[in-house]
Amino acid sequence: MTGFVSFVGSGPGDPELLTLKAADRLRNADAILFDDLSSGPILELARAEADLVGVGKRAGRPSPRQDHVSRLLVDYARSGQKVVRLKSGDGGIFGRLEEELVALKAARIPYEIVPGVPSACAAAAAAGIPLTRRLTARRVQFVTGHDVTGALPEDVNMAALADPDASTVVFMGKRTFPALAERLIAHGLPPETPALLAEAVSTPDQRITRDTVAGLASKLKSETRDRVALILYGPLAET
Amino acid sequence: MTGFVSFVGSGPGDPELLTLKAADRLRNADAILFDDLSSGPILELARAEADLVGVGKRAGRPSPRQDHVSRLLVDYARSGQKVVRLKSGDGGIFGRLEEELVALKAARIPYEIVPGVPSACAAAAAAGIPLTRRLTARRVQFVTGHDVTGALPEDVNMAALADPDASTVVFMGKRTFPALAERLIAHGLPPETPALLAEAVSTPDQRITRDTVAGLASKLKSETRDRVALILYGPLAET
Repeated sequence: MTGFVSFVGSGPGDPELLTLKAADRLRNADAILFDDLSSGPILELARAEADLVGVGKRAGRPSPRQDHVSRLLVDYARSGQKVVRLKSGDGGIFGRLEEELVALKAARIPYEIVPGVPSACAAAAAAGIPLTRRLTARRVQFVTGHDVTGALPEDVNMAALADPDASTVVFMGKRTFPALAERLIAHGLPPETPALLAEAVSTPDQRITRDTVAGLASKLKSETRDRVALILYGPLAET
Repeated sequence: MTGFVSFVGSGPGDPELLTLKAADRLRNADAILFDDLSSGPILELARAEADLVGVGKRAGRPSPRQDHVSRLLVDYARSGQKVVRLKSGDGGIFGRLEEELVALKAARIPYEIVPGVPSACAAAAAAGIPLTRRLTARRVQFVTGHDVTGALPEDVNMAALADPDASTVVFMGKRTFPALAERLIAHGLPPETPALLAEAVSTPDQRITRDTVAGLASKLKSETRDRVALILYGPLAET
């Protein structure tokens, strides 16, 4: 008796931004393993008897070890349960999906991947702007603002990130943005490039702040609140 | 009596990949203006009395003029209707959203943007792979394979696109991929970089083909079927 795992992208946080398929999987799950960022009112869809298991990953706090999460996932599935592994946004974007897929394959446990609305798309929608623009932003890129140690990754492609003709979304980069902005400007990105801080997108605490790359970097130097945030910069449209 | 416009991302095509909010907006719409790519079974959610208006954009065929679409949208809203403007995937990614937002603002018509599951995320999920990988693909980028004339855009950032450490998704690029691949390889991308052709993702006709950048380019030179397709390349995970 083998179970089944559905990797489910929760979208940005608003339960209305779950897909129909995600809502179905949550309503039918025996167990839901969730990241802190994908929880909240979304978990109210679960059956009363379902096991709800928080497996960490709150921005700025240490996460449980990834191998521990993978083992838990395998153990739940091996007991024959229908397991939902809930990941915020789309699980394939900065969701550490691969490590868990590898563990399930090794254990020969069947699974499916249900894509979700990436938080980057929800942030742009909330700000009232498109991520691509027909003549001025024909490339959009998503990068992470911290590597496994929590620092700004050293080996990023600065020619790509400092391109003024792309829309860039930095995930988990609020703390490291002042350092990133300095490097972007050194690589030729104009300091007055439009930038946007999108916090707690699609939740009641949502806050969208418009600025420039240099201005936002300066503000974030003295920022202490560590809310979930995305930073967008590039030739962003007016709202 | 002013109407209201909901820009709704339909996701890749499977009605189960609509968000709950998108399904709600479709069920309550007086009129739905849809692209060919976002139609099919999704439109069965509409009320029997709703006006369903196809406004074109099928890959490889001429689209109606964008200003005509914007005018139609304004006219429907001005007649006091609840209008859904349905766009495939996420409307903010290669959906020509900006032109229509500008027209609605000029006409002072209220609107909302409902983000959707990008076809790129659905393609990766269907292929069983994440778009980002912890150490090898910390940047993901989406580009379009054709400009307004249908040709491969000339002014793309080749340093960004030929980066072997990023996952790249090319939208609407099946016809121009042989030319793009030639330029990528000339800019240093190894010809044997993994590539994936994802056609008709999430529909009954879905087909996922794994190859290399050089191999796929060679195949597509003699390809005549013009199905909706995405091309992914980079350090893609094994399935």
